[in-house]
Amino acid sequence: MSGVFGMFADPSVSAAPLGYMALYALQHRGQESAGLVVTEGDVLHAHKGMGLTSEVFDDASLAKLPGSHAIGHVGYSRSGENHVTNAEPLWATSRFGPAAIALDGSLTNRKVLRERLLDTGALLQTTTDSELILQLMVRSRKESPEEAMVDAAKELIGGYAVVAMTPDRLVGMRDPLGIRPLVLGRLEGGHMLASETAAITSIGAEPVREVEPGELVIIDRNGVRSRRLFDRDRRAFCVFEYIYLARQDSEIEGHNVHLIRKEIGRVLARERPLDVDVVIPTPDSSVSSAMGYAEEAGIPYEMGLVKNRYVGRTFIQPTQATRQFGVRLKLHPIRTVVKGKRVVLLDDSIVRGTTTANVIRMLREAGAKEVHMVVASPPFTHPCHYGIDVPTPAELIASRRTIEEVRRHIDADSLHYLSLEGLQKAVEGNGRLCHACFSGDYPTEVPG
Amino acid sequence: MSGVFGMFADPSVSAAPLGYMALYALQHRGQESAGLVVTEGDVLHAHKGMGLTSEVFDDASLAKLPGSHAIGHVGYSRSGENHVTNAEPLWATSRFGPAAIALDGSLTNRKVLRERLLDTGALLQTTTDSELILQLMVRSRKESPEEAMVDAAKELIGGYAVVAMTPDRLVGMRDPLGIRPLVLGRLEGGHMLASETAAITSIGAEPVREVEPGELVIIDRNGVRSRRLFDRDRRAFCVFEYIYLARQDSEIEGHNVHLIRKEIGRVLARERPLDVDVVIPTPDSSVSSAMGYAEEAGIPYEMGLVKNRYVGRTFIQPTQATRQFGVRLKLHPIRTVVKGKRVVLLDDSIVRGTTTANVIRMLREAGAKEVHMVVASPPFTHPCHYGIDVPTPAELIASRRTIEEVRRHIDADSLHYLSLEGLQKAVEGNGRLCHACFSGDYPTEVPG
Amino acid sequence: MSGVFGMFADPSVSAAPLGYMALYALQHRGQESAGLVVTEGDVLHAHKGMGLTSEVFDDASLAKLPGSHAIGHVGYSRSGENHVTNAEPLWATSRFGPAAIALDGSLTNRKVLRERLLDTGALLQTTTDSELILQLMVRSRKESPEEAMVDAAKELIGGYAVVAMTPDRLVGMRDPLGIRPLVLGRLEGGHMLASETAAITSIGAEPVREVEPGELVIIDRNGVRSRRLFDRDRRAFCVFEYIYLARQDSEIEGHNVHLIRKEIGRVLARERPLDVDVVIPTPDSSVSSAMGYAEEAGIPYEMGLVKNRYVGRTFIQPTQATRQFGVRLKLHPIRTVVKGKRVVLLDDSIVRGTTTANVIRMLREAGAKEVHMVVASPPFTHPCHYGIDVPTPAELIASRRTIEEVRRHIDADSLHYLSLEGLQKAVEGNGRLCHACFSGDYPTEVPG
Amino acid sequence: MSGVFGMFADPSVSAAPLGYMALYALQHRGQESAGLVVTEGDVLHAHKGMGLTSEVFDDASLAKLPGSHAIGHVGYSRSGENHVTNAEPLWATSRFGPAAIALDGSLTNRKVLRERLLDTGALLQTTTDSELILQLMVRSRKESPEEAMVDAAKELIGGYAVVAMTPDRLVGMRDPLGIRPLVLGRLEGGHMLASETAAITSIGAEPVREVEPGELVIIDRNGVRSRRLFDRDRRAFCVFEYIYLARQDSEIEGHNVHLIRKEIGRVLARERPLDVDVVIPTPDSSVSSAMGYAEEAGIPYEMGLVKNRYVGRTFIQPTQATRQFGVRLKLHPIRTVVKGKRVVLLDDSIVRGTTTANVIRMLREAGAKEVHMVVASPPFTHPCHYGIDVPTPAELIASRRTIEEVRRHIDADSLHYLSLEGLQKAVEGNGRLCHACFSGDYPTEVPG
Repeated sequence: MSGVFGMFADPSVSAAPLGYMALYALQHRGQESAGLVVTEGDVLHAHKGMGLTSEVFDDASLAKLPGSHAIGHVGYSRSGENHVTNAEPLWATSRFGPAAIALDGSLTNRKVLRERLLDTGALLQTTTDSELILQLMVRSRKESPEEAMVDAAKELIGGYAVVAMTPDRLVGMRDPLGIRPLVLGRLEGGHMLASETAAITSIGAEPVREVEPGELVIIDRNGVRSRRLFDRDRRAFCVFEYIYLARQDSEIEGHNVHLIRKEIGRVLARERPLDVDVVIPTPDSSVSSAMGYAEEAGIPYEMGLVKNRYVGRTFIQPTQATRQFGVRLKLHPIRTVVKGKRVVLLDDSIVRGTTTANVIRMLREAGAKEVHMVVASPPFTHPCHYGIDVPTPAELIASRRTIEEVRRHIDADSLHYLSLEGLQKAVEGNGRLCHACFSGDYPTEVPG
Repeated sequence: MSGVFGMFADPSVSAAPLGYMALYALQHRGQESAGLVVTEGDVLHAHKGMGLTSEVFDDASLAKLPGSHAIGHVGYSRSGENHVTNAEPLWATSRFGPAAIALDGSLTNRKVLRERLLDTGALLQTTTDSELILQLMVRSRKESPEEAMVDAAKELIGGYAVVAMTPDRLVGMRDPLGIRPLVLGRLEGGHMLASETAAITSIGAEPVREVEPGELVIIDRNGVRSRRLFDRDRRAFCVFEYIYLARQDSEIEGHNVHLIRKEIGRVLARERPLDVDVVIPTPDSSVSSAMGYAEEAGIPYEMGLVKNRYVGRTFIQPTQATRQFGVRLKLHPIRTVVKGKRVVLLDDSIVRGTTTANVIRMLREAGAKEVHMVVASPPFTHPCHYGIDVPTPAELIASRRTIEEVRRHIDADSLHYLSLEGLQKAVEGNGRLCHACFSGDYPTEVPG
Repeated sequence: MSGVFGMFADPSVSAAPLGYMALYALQHRGQESAGLVVTEGDVLHAHKGMGLTSEVFDDASLAKLPGSHAIGHVGYSRSGENHVTNAEPLWATSRFGPAAIALDGSLTNRKVLRERLLDTGALLQTTTDSELILQLMVRSRKESPEEAMVDAAKELIGGYAVVAMTPDRLVGMRDPLGIRPLVLGRLEGGHMLASETAAITSIGAEPVREVEPGELVIIDRNGVRSRRLFDRDRRAFCVFEYIYLARQDSEIEGHNVHLIRKEIGRVLARERPLDVDVVIPTPDSSVSSAMGYAEEAGIPYEMGLVKNRYVGRTFIQPTQATRQFGVRLKLHPIRTVVKGKRVVLLDDSIVRGTTTANVIRMLREAGAKEVHMVVASPPFTHPCHYGIDVPTPAELIASRRTIEEVRRHIDADSLHYLSLEGLQKAVEGNGRLCHACFSGDYPTEVPG
Repeated sequence: MSGVFGMFADPSVSAAPLGYMALYALQHRGQESAGLVVTEGDVLHAHKGMGLTSEVFDDASLAKLPGSHAIGHVGYSRSGENHVTNAEPLWATSRFGPAAIALDGSLTNRKVLRERLLDTGALLQTTTDSELILQLMVRSRKESPEEAMVDAAKELIGGYAVVAMTPDRLVGMRDPLGIRPLVLGRLEGGHMLASETAAITSIGAEPVREVEPGELVIIDRNGVRSRRLFDRDRRAFCVFEYIYLARQDSEIEGHNVHLIRKEIGRVLARERPLDVDVVIPTPDSSVSSAMGYAEEAGIPYEMGLVKNRYVGRTFIQPTQATRQFGVRLKLHPIRTVVKGKRVVLLDDSIVRGTTTANVIRMLREAGAKEVHMVVASPPFTHPCHYGIDVPTPAELIASRRTIEEVRRHIDADSLHYLSLEGLQKAVEGNGRLCHACFSGDYPTEVPG
């Protein structure tokens, strides 16, 4: 998971603070590294580091990034590769001059591309997909960087949204199936790109439209141009953006994420009507779907669990004495709300099952008479090859147990997962989806 | 605002990690300093510092705090006095041996006490009220620390909850009117004290009862003893605990805070029925009252504003470029939810009015047709002398403007503040309240 | 070991940066904490912390210390008491108003004083001797702070140099025997006090004279006044200041420290003439005495050991792999210089013997034919009760072994310690000395 | 300026702590970044960062570097390029597999190489010369990495010492003229490479010999092999290593650096006999030459200046109040030593002249009757193109002023620079030197 940002504006605009704000608004997409590359139209100025945006940047480092064009990135590192060398954006110099690039998503033919590039004399200094794209570009025979980018794009398989920048132009590119999101926006004096509309509106800019699947958008002094790199009508937008990833105030294809999640809740209520007293979300991620479930079912929505707002990455490693507290560090039941009640508990997904089991135990200890678990997504059974960092299948509880076994493991009175059909219905009108994590039906070639 | 904690347990219990957890659960009461003093029954081990609990402590510092008895504190510093010297708990040695103390609240006769103590030869090394209490104790003629504490207590005027510890005993004390909260709990192998029940349940302990106004609780190897220091039937519990300060999962006099806030919302809906389309809370503090308002009024409750979960103290100081964003750093409207709608916006209070004005402008820009402001407390007009850190009257918008002037300042279509009667009704059964911040009716002597 | 500083100057002088510089020049006297208290003549502004002066202070913290009067301190913490609460200066308020105090040295009647103070109602918040002095002052019946200080001084036994400050005056005080040093200096627009002349000259000021044993110096708007608190002619200046503690460019009673150490070397050469090829110091502390030895003996002085200039407190804890290197982390032989040579190695003292043994082994491995050890002080056998932090007698190699046993332990071809008579001769004209660490002859009452 | 290190050892050897120690011993060659790459024979583990070795590494980061083969680097960043991206070692993957590289020195044909590489499709991600070497290697048509390295070496012009590593081999390479140093050593269970012998002896290993100018040394499981890449008999070893750069305990071509500096002092005494009272070094760099001068001239060597051992990079930026102190922050005269004396002051070089002028003024204020300046190198007039970071010619005082003008600027009674002939004589037997910084006689092509 990552968030990307790009901006091309008039010289009067200072891109670094705006970029900082945009990365800040995309922070939920990646909390392990943050970086900005900014240019005034000649050299690239860069700053990146491990940590949250607010940890990596301060006024002093922003002040060293003059210029009105920028790209930025917030990211998760793939496990074990958390050195800043792999943090994005990357920047490099080639026959096209200086350039910077950042990517959200993942290439499924990474291994093939790396081998081919190494065979043809490439020196790979990171393990990022972004570097592979730059290497493919310089290997193109084309004279112009834009044509070289087009050549490179043809080699890529996977789900990706790319922002790249040379001193005089910004480009954005989305994979042919539009698996990963990328949005174009307009601000006073320029244009911008971002993974979500929330990053655009957060700096007072206006979303214009989504970059199309397979589209290359080029922004320079003359405005915005577009090229279709692939001519297909198939789409496969990542369903996990709807369920979990995107921020509630973002819009995807014109539909607000919060409202889509409410709709998912409504579908769930129709799929699984329950005779219970109260609907409780697992905060914060399933608040929207619980509201929808409650409205549709006509059952009161209640705050049965409170989240500690100070839970952070700096929390001490569990010691013998604190390990016993488990999820209690983070979530706390409101006893009066759940005591003696038949509860339906909503959550967006069940991954390993441990947290869910603990929450249910906590609700029972708080006096809940029944706890029915309703999950706002189908059983999570397959790995994602498009950039979502998920446990191995062996760790995914639904990939090795039946639903009844899961129910017993989490000790719920009943357990219902959203059906794939229900999910598609809830996001109806939003085109075809990638639901491989639930179905194993990958829309591209995948490794192995 | 501060949070206090105390524990007296069997030698098998390790108090430091439990104290850490309890302070963590009280973090909302004070974010500028944290400290623990722990003892095995002989010397006191102490660690404190400026910052959040998770910043001040780590495994190494907790490991240096062996013992099964502890007191702890999270606090705000009074302005300009943020040196760690003033962080609590304090610890000192006197003719009674070593002792530690921490306090939530404020003495209104601080100035008089300081002068009297200085006149009688005291050396004051901090500006805390806790030090005054220790100094009063050592000036008592009584032989036992308990009697000395009783003597000291008689000198105190104000709202306070105190925890104090010697190597062989823990005491808790609450002001005669019970302005500030203090709760007694039981854990396996011992007892504990805390500002809120949430800190008790968060470590798997059970709340037993509130320490009574004017009560001194002594916990030692023989169990829990109680002394009534004052024999009055007047009570004046801080109403701001209900409205804003306490955590939603805490219980005050047997009533859950979230449900009381919902009830406040219901009273508001009856006081001010509005013909609108949607009820929107200002997250996170007015979610409960907005739910109550919506239920009572039969108007849909909706998520119209999203809060950035990564807003923290490390955010960059606003520069020329970021200052323009104001509240947009933190709150974001969901356009689809508010567009074309007549909105009632709930908030727990209006202090300076700046944030409220910005949120309303943001909602209007997002397309709200009407924005009606409903405040879950009466107009905030008077300073608190009991430990709540509030702006000067000159900064409190309601103390220098009429309601209509405030409405115009924040540009709301209408503005309603909860009536004092309504507030009292909502917390009915919870005894008499201190509502001086709304009424100027202070339940004790106050300075000036 | 500690260093103290005081300044009283015209309003045009900014005391904080000068105090910073002075503490910086006194850093060799204490590396664990640093602090400054500054006043413009009303309130005291203070900043202190654990670490080196350059770590505790920066431009921002200095800027928050306005005023032209100041005291400061750099210190070692007594073992286990390294919390900032014990860092000096201390500041407090009493019936005399605000005051700050800092001390170099140690009271030998600390225990008695603490007990007496506790009995009379004192609340002790630190374990410093400075606090005891303030407590004694406020317990005096005298009206003026100066007379109260005189009363307090009469209770003190030990070796100490004190600087203290109220908003309108600076005082310096030295113990009756002058065990610890304190110097008065003059700068443009004011006066200053410091543990060593090096701190005075380092800020461009001029040393005026030493504060006399048992003298109280008062500096205020009217200039410098002096009071003799004790009328004795005995003196007992700490001989360790000459041997190790004071900086080479400081002067003690008009004699330069470097030249005194050279003279010690000369005395050693006369006490122990050796037929060797080269004289080698253990850098940096015995460079001066080795120069003196070489000159007197007519044997070449050479650099046989090089010190790594980057050795610091941040060096990694030895691991299984690095522990083997021992002193090699810090000192390196120059092989060509020592190979095949008969070497006399100078050092200021032998404490535990471990380092010396390692250095001698290193020199032998580098090819030295003979290594004769000459120590610029008598055998270190007794603890210091006047503020020098030394190991317990059990750890002092000379207190439990004969000289021959020490020689065998360190594997030297011969071993000579400076005689006590030789030491006294070398510092001749510098009055009577405290040499209790070598002789056990303590000039005051000591505990136990 | 940089320091490099390499090690290839048996699996029983843990390379990371030894590499840490070696970098620590090379710290004087570069204080802005430090890095290690270690391998067990398969993947490369790497850690680097900005700062001193002891700041960049701790036990935790060393523990993540398992393996018995390693290379390391400490470096200065070229101005403005202080991002960690440019810190060395670099690591990358190519058709030869994973590799790491680090370099001390500088290529004079960097610009030409960069352009040629960019033209042929290289993607340059740093501004280091190390990356250029890797890029040249992968562009070679040779199958083996060793032959590719030979191909690459043929393209390089400049002064450089390179260490590089693949999982199964370590290589070292020195420029054809041997401008920069590189030494081969043997440790129990393996071999090592380092910029100086001090790094070898500091870990208990033995120097074997210098890598020859133009030699490629290959170390693998089968031992050490050597290839001569260039067949010339010209040599041009950097004279600045003798004068300033190398540590005093290092040996260059079998001669100890301290003793060579003493010999320089002797030559100076013969070139410029002076009728003075005392010889004073500027500590620490000219201690050796001052000792030689004093011995040869028969004039007493004295410690007239003391250096503050706590001067570090963390010192506060000079403010209006501290700026006046200038060099007084760092150096302090011993008045008694210089008062009334005719002094000869030694220093290794005069760069801008500011510090020298300040030191002379300080000595005069301390009472020196005459101050004669003697410089242990010829006038510094030309930039270094081989890796020594020196000011621009415009800033070099000797490149724009006559010797008499310099004397007047620094206010010395007389001024003598070592003659180039004298310098060559002092290092006699050490082969031909690069003295371009004094003569402008560059031994290779240089830019411009």
